[in-house]
Amino acid sequence: METEMKIAVLGTGMVGQTIAVRLSSLGHDVHMGTRDPAETAGRREPGPWGQPSFADWLEAHPEITLESFEAAAHHGEIVLNCTAGGKSLEALRAAGADKLAGKVIVDIANPLDSSRGMPPVLSVSNTDSLGEQIQRAFPAARVVKTLNTMNCNIMVDPSRIPGVHHVFLSGNDAEAKRQVRALLESFGWQHIIDLGDITTARGPEQVLPLWIRLWGVLGNADFNFAVVHG
Amino acid sequence: METEMKIAVLGTGMVGQTIAVRLSSLGHDVHMGTRDPAETAGRREPGPWGQPSFADWLEAHPEITLESFEAAAHHGEIVLNCTAGGKSLEALRAAGADKLAGKVIVDIANPLDSSRGMPPVLSVSNTDSLGEQIQRAFPAARVVKTLNTMNCNIMVDPSRIPGVHHVFLSGNDAEAKRQVRALLESFGWQHIIDLGDITTARGPEQVLPLWIRLWGVLGNADFNFAVVHG
Repeated sequence: METEMKIAVLGTGMVGQTIAVRLSSLGHDVHMGTRDPAETAGRREPGPWGQPSFADWLEAHPEITLESFEAAAHHGEIVLNCTAGGKSLEALRAAGADKLAGKVIVDIANPLDSSRGMPPVLSVSNTDSLGEQIQRAFPAARVVKTLNTMNCNIMVDPSRIPGVHHVFLSGNDAEAKRQVRALLESFGWQHIIDLGDITTARGPEQVLPLWIRLWGVLGNADFNFAVVHG
Repeated sequence: METEMKIAVLGTGMVGQTIAVRLSSLGHDVHMGTRDPAETAGRREPGPWGQPSFADWLEAHPEITLESFEAAAHHGEIVLNCTAGGKSLEALRAAGADKLAGKVIVDIANPLDSSRGMPPVLSVSNTDSLGEQIQRAFPAARVVKTLNTMNCNIMVDPSRIPGVHHVFLSGNDAEAKRQVRALLESFGWQHIIDLGDITTARGPEQVLPLWIRLWGVLGNADFNFAVVHG
């Protein structure tokens, strides 16, 4: 991004934390949104992958403000959806359609459903996508789907993976995609493929089942997809 | 493959033709299966992409035998499913469970459904796959899903795409996957990822919606996916 912005990061999991720290380090004013800020701020159990507790993480990042979904969305000139895909619509409704109107929503979430066992399946796919659901639910917002096809450490630092590899963009609004492209470039992304309108989000979202299997086969999440041309 | 084999190629479209010619050029004895050989052999209209008619193609390839699904499957020590995904189960039933028993079925098909408009959607996805449907329908056969994530010209000649790019393997039978890996290597494949059992076919099959969008964005089919490691 050319200038420092007020940014809302909705969701306090690994993706939200990683994105928030990166945006903050780039000089943006980041407010993180959660359902119940007091409850979230009090979480003392370690993360599922052995990370620090949320309380410890937040104390280590005083530059990041934790507040309600609604307050964070009110703050943000741009809103990043880093919630779990199955809870994204609920979180965005809590943020409020009036707070989202006119803004760019960067949808990073994947609608994974582990309730039927592992590996998870998609709760929406094929003839619809989470990106489209969000755009339909918030028609006055401008949804751009991106970054959902790689681990969060790669999202914010693509140089972790050598050589050419790609991130995809889907959205109906050209100016919104231009803003998101600038944000991706500020993270270091050099190879960005604009797939088209928000219906094209079905493609990257449906990559997740392959991503999950590759994660298992390769034994770590430090990989990304590249589209190699003849 | 180490030795020349008797091979059945089911399906007479672009994929079947391309695979049959390649296998034949490698010294294999290829019989191509179709529903009605007399009807197929009499097709004089050009292909959908301006290719020669099937009749002209067959006349140019006297080394390839065209016969019924059943006769081709009887001939083949290994059977390649190159039919349209929506017709694969019907074609394999016509081939006959007794003719397929014990054999490796290489499933290259994608269950694309264009009946609801373009781009096509998947007729099976997420919680199931065509590869699994075929394995369930023919439990005495050994299904290996592969090669469905790229254009047929790349399937048989991966050197068209420079550098590292990948093909995936899914199947329950390790010996069947060993045979298919050898077949892929005979085509020139150097980077083969074994995803696991046949349920992992859901991953590569669900890549098709992204593949189709990339085809539109890039303007040609001369590309493939690579999995790039950190």
